[in-house]
Amino acid sequence: MEQQLFVTMAINAWNTQITRAGKIFHAFTDDELLKPVAPGKNRVIYLLGHLLTYHDMMAETLGIGTRHYHHLDNDFIINPDKKGIEKHSPEELKQHWDDVHQRLTGYFAQLQPADWFKRHNAVNDEDFAKDPTRNRLNLLMNRTGHVAYHLGQVKLAAVS
Amino acid sequence: MEQQLFVTMAINAWNTQITRAGKIFHAFTDDELLKPVAPGKNRVIYLLGHLLTYHDMMAETLGIGTRHYHHLDNDFIINPDKKGIEKHSPEELKQHWDDVHQRLTGYFAQLQPADWFKRHNAVNDEDFAKDPTRNRLNLLMNRTGHVAYHLGQVKLAAVS
Repeated sequence: MEQQLFVTMAINAWNTQITRAGKIFHAFTDDELLKPVAPGKNRVIYLLGHLLTYHDMMAETLGIGTRHYHHLDNDFIINPDKKGIEKHSPEELKQHWDDVHQRLTGYFAQLQPADWFKRHNAVNDEDFAKDPTRNRLNLLMNRTGHVAYHLGQVKLAAVS
Repeated sequence: MEQQLFVTMAINAWNTQITRAGKIFHAFTDDELLKPVAPGKNRVIYLLGHLLTYHDMMAETLGIGTRHYHHLDNDFIINPDKKGIEKHSPEELKQHWDDVHQRLTGYFAQLQPADWFKRHNAVNDEDFAKDPTRNRLNLLMNRTGHVAYHLGQVKLAAVS
């Protein structure tokens, strides 16, 4: 019962950030996506690709699904923002944004509350035994904060 | 047991953001605090005052302590960033930042895990009965996201 409540709270927080970020990203025109959030800083298109690729990884890190966008790692995770990433069209990236989050929602729906308190794949059994906070739900909470962090930046470049 | 685990996870997430933000704010010189995070956007000093004043309110919203900085509401909560807020010295604001979070840590330490799942003062009994996710811990999780959101912006103005 309480497990369910806490899982609901954490998933609600995730959904709130994802919905807000999705609305903002979709509202940018192709040209606007090429604007940096501040002079000399990441462009919006980079942050769009960065977040969706990171969230694509989440399914595997959580051990609940498979990745689809390995081909984006180099441009949006491994390297900082640089010329050339425009080869990924805004239309493609926006579609991936929607798809990756729809898939995650589907994966989440298949988990029982207790599953969220099991370890994720970025921690081994020994470390998890020492620190049971390093569970799947905690990873979701960290990722939620990561979205909020970049959303604050993207918002600076938003038209309204 | 599980209640304790959730509470630990949520407080850890809060502490992580507060520690990161505190380090960044303290590293700004007085002049640097007057820089906007992006052209035409909030200055760092505004976000410092905004977050600390908002967190000062939290003790009362959570129903666990009293406020100290009512006099900052007008400049940092009610109004957007505007000329004149420099009357609050950086030294004073940085000290308030440390003090408000130290007080909150003390208040949090006095709560039992079950206390976190009671309603906060921004929701009434009737609404809370309908939606028990609107508890104190959820408010802490929301505020944690709010810090992350602005931290992403402040980071843009950070020297390193």
